[in-house]
Amino acid sequence: MFKNHIFICSETKPPMVPSCGGTGSAEVLDAFRKEIFNSGLEKEVVVTSSGCIGMCSRGANVVIYPEGKWYTVVKPEEVQKIVKEHIIDGKPVEDRNDPPSDVLKNEVSMFQERIKMMMQDAGKL
Amino acid sequence: MFKNHIFICSETKPPMVPSCGGTGSAEVLDAFRKEIFNSGLEKEVVVTSSGCIGMCSRGANVVIYPEGKWYTVVKPEEVQKIVKEHIIDGKPVEDRNDPPSDVLKNEVSMFQERIKMMMQDAGKL
Repeated sequence: MFKNHIFICSETKPPMVPSCGGTGSAEVLDAFRKEIFNSGLEKEVVVTSSGCIGMCSRGANVVIYPEGKWYTVVKPEEVQKIVKEHIIDGKPVEDRNDPPSDVLKNEVSMFQERIKMMMQDAGKL
Repeated sequence: MFKNHIFICSETKPPMVPSCGGTGSAEVLDAFRKEIFNSGLEKEVVVTSSGCIGMCSRGANVVIYPEGKWYTVVKPEEVQKIVKEHIIDGKPVEDRNDPPSDVLKNEVSMFQERIKMMMQDAGKL
């Protein structure tokens, strides 16, 4: 239905606990909206904040669908490049220091495992 | 990287303003996690809350990628069916009362237009 859907993790956590909200994700969200809106792409590309997606020490984390491309440690100043290359030119940005996909997948899985354990402890599973 | 990524809008708004958070999205989020975790799919399917994605009077709204399938007015009791059919069997559920995709796309676009105008008013664009 949409060309792309960009999710920017905006989770905040207590002080001293790493989180995307604590590492400038609000500015990253604004930067994505600014780039998308100024490019006139608001009818084709949705920009949404998200809750925690793991990798909390690598914020701000961004995931772009339908490609399922995960960007970590995203700074506002590189949003223009991501929108230009990934969204407009259709080429996800690869020359970054993101973890290899197996490492990244493992970290996100571990995050889900922790939620599963918390739900079990709470008697919700 | 992941088979699916399920986003459940968890936005809350002031009293009397329709929102997914005000129509039971926390229970829908829990229901998705419960189904995914009990099915042992936590390494393949990510479940995440999201900020507002528009269509606030049709909460709880759910979007599942990479298909980009939008579900509206989702209730906890139908989550099992969505996970079984869409996630496990790979067949997005179509026999629901969701708006046609052009109506839905228009509503989400209008929501983004409103954010764009608010950012312009605030001098951010």
